[in-house]
Amino acid sequence: MCRFVIYKGTSPVQLSHLLTRPCHSIINQAFDSRLRLDHRRPINGDGFGVGWYDSVYDEELGSQPCIFTSVTPAWNNANLIRLAEKIKSPLVFGHVRATTAGSLSLDNCHPFKFGRLMFMHNGGISDFPLIKRRLQTALSDEIFNVVQGNTDSEWAFALFLAQLPDPNAKCFPPEVLKRAMLDTIATLNTYAEDAGITEPSLMNFCVTDGESVVATRYISSRHDEAASLWFSSGTTFSEYAKGGHYKMSKADKRENIIMIASEPLTFEKADWMEIRTNNMVVITPKMNLLQIPIIDKFYVPPSDPASLNRGTDFAAAKGLLSPRRALAPVQVRDNTPKISI
Amino acid sequence: MCRFVIYKGTSPVQLSHLLTRPCHSIINQAFDSRLRLDHRRPINGDGFGVGWYDSVYDEELGSQPCIFTSVTPAWNNANLIRLAEKIKSPLVFGHVRATTAGSLSLDNCHPFKFGRLMFMHNGGISDFPLIKRRLQTALSDEIFNVVQGNTDSEWAFALFLAQLPDPNAKCFPPEVLKRAMLDTIATLNTYAEDAGITEPSLMNFCVTDGESVVATRYISSRHDEAASLWFSSGTTFSEYAKGGHYKMSKADKRENIIMIASEPLTFEKADWMEIRTNNMVVITPKMNLLQIPIIDKFYVPPSDPASLNRGTDFAAAKGLLSPRRALAPVQVRDNTPKISI
Amino acid sequence: MCRFVIYKGTSPVQLSHLLTRPCHSIINQAFDSRLRLDHRRPINGDGFGVGWYDSVYDEELGSQPCIFTSVTPAWNNANLIRLAEKIKSPLVFGHVRATTAGSLSLDNCHPFKFGRLMFMHNGGISDFPLIKRRLQTALSDEIFNVVQGNTDSEWAFALFLAQLPDPNAKCFPPEVLKRAMLDTIATLNTYAEDAGITEPSLMNFCVTDGESVVATRYISSRHDEAASLWFSSGTTFSEYAKGGHYKMSKADKRENIIMIASEPLTFEKADWMEIRTNNMVVITPKMNLLQIPIIDKFYVPPSDPASLNRGTDFAAAKGLLSPRRALAPVQVRDNTPKISI
Amino acid sequence: MCRFVIYKGTSPVQLSHLLTRPCHSIINQAFDSRLRLDHRRPINGDGFGVGWYDSVYDEELGSQPCIFTSVTPAWNNANLIRLAEKIKSPLVFGHVRATTAGSLSLDNCHPFKFGRLMFMHNGGISDFPLIKRRLQTALSDEIFNVVQGNTDSEWAFALFLAQLPDPNAKCFPPEVLKRAMLDTIATLNTYAEDAGITEPSLMNFCVTDGESVVATRYISSRHDEAASLWFSSGTTFSEYAKGGHYKMSKADKRENIIMIASEPLTFEKADWMEIRTNNMVVITPKMNLLQIPIIDKFYVPPSDPASLNRGTDFAAAKGLLSPRRALAPVQVRDNTPKISI
Repeated sequence: MCRFVIYKGTSPVQLSHLLTRPCHSIINQAFDSRLRLDHRRPINGDGFGVGWYDSVYDEELGSQPCIFTSVTPAWNNANLIRLAEKIKSPLVFGHVRATTAGSLSLDNCHPFKFGRLMFMHNGGISDFPLIKRRLQTALSDEIFNVVQGNTDSEWAFALFLAQLPDPNAKCFPPEVLKRAMLDTIATLNTYAEDAGITEPSLMNFCVTDGESVVATRYISSRHDEAASLWFSSGTTFSEYAKGGHYKMSKADKRENIIMIASEPLTFEKADWMEIRTNNMVVITPKMNLLQIPIIDKFYVPPSDPASLNRGTDFAAAKGLLSPRRALAPVQVRDNTPKISI
Repeated sequence: MCRFVIYKGTSPVQLSHLLTRPCHSIINQAFDSRLRLDHRRPINGDGFGVGWYDSVYDEELGSQPCIFTSVTPAWNNANLIRLAEKIKSPLVFGHVRATTAGSLSLDNCHPFKFGRLMFMHNGGISDFPLIKRRLQTALSDEIFNVVQGNTDSEWAFALFLAQLPDPNAKCFPPEVLKRAMLDTIATLNTYAEDAGITEPSLMNFCVTDGESVVATRYISSRHDEAASLWFSSGTTFSEYAKGGHYKMSKADKRENIIMIASEPLTFEKADWMEIRTNNMVVITPKMNLLQIPIIDKFYVPPSDPASLNRGTDFAAAKGLLSPRRALAPVQVRDNTPKISI
Repeated sequence: MCRFVIYKGTSPVQLSHLLTRPCHSIINQAFDSRLRLDHRRPINGDGFGVGWYDSVYDEELGSQPCIFTSVTPAWNNANLIRLAEKIKSPLVFGHVRATTAGSLSLDNCHPFKFGRLMFMHNGGISDFPLIKRRLQTALSDEIFNVVQGNTDSEWAFALFLAQLPDPNAKCFPPEVLKRAMLDTIATLNTYAEDAGITEPSLMNFCVTDGESVVATRYISSRHDEAASLWFSSGTTFSEYAKGGHYKMSKADKRENIIMIASEPLTFEKADWMEIRTNNMVVITPKMNLLQIPIIDKFYVPPSDPASLNRGTDFAAAKGLLSPRRALAPVQVRDNTPKISI
Repeated sequence: MCRFVIYKGTSPVQLSHLLTRPCHSIINQAFDSRLRLDHRRPINGDGFGVGWYDSVYDEELGSQPCIFTSVTPAWNNANLIRLAEKIKSPLVFGHVRATTAGSLSLDNCHPFKFGRLMFMHNGGISDFPLIKRRLQTALSDEIFNVVQGNTDSEWAFALFLAQLPDPNAKCFPPEVLKRAMLDTIATLNTYAEDAGITEPSLMNFCVTDGESVVATRYISSRHDEAASLWFSSGTTFSEYAKGGHYKMSKADKRENIIMIASEPLTFEKADWMEIRTNNMVVITPKMNLLQIPIIDKFYVPPSDPASLNRGTDFAAAKGLLSPRRALAPVQVRDNTPKISI
């Protein structure tokens, strides 16, 4: 039962506005029981991480992201609180973790980094030990030796890197990231099928190169709902009332900010659109956003009535379903910015 | 919103039965939202501590307790899990902490120790900065310099030590511990009154010398309920169903085990008796248990109808009220073992 | 046996060039035994901290410094390594700590911060418990409650704040910082004398408001040498040979960089000038540097032959003397940039 | 440049006498530069671990060892200091670590445990990434999934487990442990040879099942000295002078205590015998001790003059050579207790 948030803006955001100040941030959600459906799991007290890119390119500093992780809870991490007050970034990944797999260790904290790429995961690869070796065999020595921790998520990132034409490239067009993501999911499905694994895997993956973002809401099942995933867009994200009450404002037609998160991050729920199960979201360098169905044998088209009947028990049992889904079905806005890529 | 548990038994308990295995232990409660009433506070992910005395006296090892503390959450602390499987003790204090005051630091984790004495606290001294200096002035140099952290709780322990005839004594009869505890509370009340502090303080304190235990359920208010406090006694405490389902059994009239806890630790709620607000519980070396009213201006006798009308909002707002209180009033059993001390 | 470094430059420095990359940085010194004279103390593995000011003023981010601390050793702290590669600053304080006093805790890591002020200490206040209460009495409630840890150093910072006309001021001219520093030392000397403390205190203090820096090399003794303190200045500080070999270059008359450190940070020892015992160094906002004698009863003028005979045993026994001092007396350059303040 | 110590006694030892009190313990050695030959490596501040077996068998507690590890330096770890004062054990492994491989993480701290077996390593497998996959292929799924960290040492332990007839056995005769240890070394040598690795590997391995101990001093080279390894035996190990000065006493012919360590642990050097390079030491359940040559292509018999000419530069460069070796060649006592196994 992890939680994550992605921020991409035309202007940099002070990290505190995203992480530490909002009463409804992924960090503060971590101890808000109203949103918890899984009573058997700890509440994201098992470490966290935040990764960000520079506001202004500096040749000396390079183009890789900076990552700060910790194994103590985010909500009272003095370093996080101080850094978040002093750092601004136009593209941020934040992740709080529950140890569904892997021990409590800095090596196991998301996001993971390779060159200019950054990756995180919410969910779990079912029966991962049964496919771990086969996955490792598919990796080059370079990528095999990049892995530092012992989580399914980091190995999934390694597999993603292996799908790229060149993981050390200086530039990753959205189409390249999207292709590699689809190949990663397809490969994991093949491994699971060959190993006779029947429990679905929850694969909400996010990757970015600092320019584009690709995020999936995916489950390897036709009958179950994936872990929740939402997005919001607008012109400003700011505090409208004391106590950390934030909202997304839409001053005009421009989309200056796009946020993707495992759960709505404001109380203004109308601002949050649910991403459909087994869909992928792409944010382009120019801030266009596209929802793309992931069409494989687990895909159920919206036109098929079965698409409304995916069971929520599985994701809920893993603590991976946000509350609003239970309350009412949400229609994705028609005016979602789209591009063809 | 801390939680604690005290175990005293005629036989030693394996710490895992108390701390890590029960699905309803203070550690696992830490992420069970059904018991949480305070949505604004973290859920005991801010460090924990356990202190215990040896099963068999060994001259080389001495009579002081051993204490293990950590600033990472208890529920997946690998050292705690390993130690709890290997250590047995007849007298254990366990504490999980939320940072109502003081930073996240080993120095701030309960229980605190001085010689053979061990102390912990659930609650908070209101406006403590306003009385901190006066409290410090009341201490001898020896005790003043014992304090390592920056919590109201540790300073309250220092004040308790200052009430003892000799904090370095080899033996503390229950009457001595009881007297010092009453003096500690009275002194804190005087300080608060002189400083013009009006918000009540929640003073659930526990102290032991390895033989006797004194625990208070106290609030400096006539109108509000104190933080919750419960006890249970029986002959064996064991797992009756897989998955960490424990219960207290009463095989005969003997009371081999007495447990005191901020909240019931089993689902067998009939086994748990609530300690009345503004009462003190004493466990003697011979395992007798006595409830003693703390009679001062905040005391309301059970015969006074006002005793049923203490408001729960204050303690609930601090996250310090266990759920059963809200469900139904509970009568303390008449057959509580008693002694006169 | 702590170590520290101060960097102030007209251009920002990437923190890695100061902290993690040089083979001779305070972090890497931490495990270079050639510089250690104290065999009884751990080698700066007891936590570290770095504080820095922004390169460009940003109204949203404010003018206070950012501070990152850790209780694990600096040399393999993954967060430090990553942050140091991504952060640039024109004014940096770095500190590695040995626990001469106070427990291992984030609260005890230097530098300490108050508003826009930052402070650190290398040395020790002798018999501090004997004067701690009197020092506390001298503080306002606001400053008294600022202290989070339990070190002599942090209380010395509180005392320093109490000497300022207004610790919350927006601006601290060098003269104000200098005056408060002299008063802090004088007050500590008075306390020690009144308490009958005879062992000298080692008071190498550094303070900055982000514009000016004041650093002292001081001991409350006429006969002993203070903990070592050095400075270097030049136009660029860069790696001249692989493996972290750095040097200070002086391309022209301009002083773009001034560094002050407990020990020389490069192998080019000619670049490092020793600051005289019981002197203060001031770096002005405009990068002028002045050495000012601290004239009190412990001062011995350079013209007095006794100034050459200060004993090194005391500082050496505390591990606070850098090696070159033992090798040869060093003359401060005559061309030290000076201002009158 | 790790350090370790093994204690096996007919009576249990209070851990503090082994770890925290002696001025010359592996923990305090960690900051005693006189013993350090490697100036480029940190001084064992990268975590530590201690593992021990119960003094008295308790069916509820089982026969597996307990392990306590930490990523903060051992020398001021408050938990270690408290536990070491309260725990006694007849068989203890202690290890302080420098990160020659693997990140700073609890998962990477020695000793490692599997069932009742405990394992630790001082040294390094050269170019381990080149053979890591082949090693993994040799493991059963059960053992493959046991590994939690990312060190060569833990994978070497997994390989050792794979050499055992049954790693889950209830009993491991010394001959079985010895055989598996020889097979582990031979297998690693084969992997290295096949991978074209030419740099020697330093394989000082220790394993125990709580009854027997097997420790190797080994290097895969005919020309270089292995990392140092010493042993001492006697009737009592106690403090003979204040300040942590310990010595081994030999009151009679009985050998009640056998210690094996990477470096002499007392100043009484006459009490420490050096184990020859490419030899194995076995301690039997009945406290007999045998030195057995590891005869393979890297073995040089003592009768061969080349055995005296092994170069010390390689081990010294890794910081793995204790000082006495450099001072004078040491003869193993003739009266070493021996058994035939």
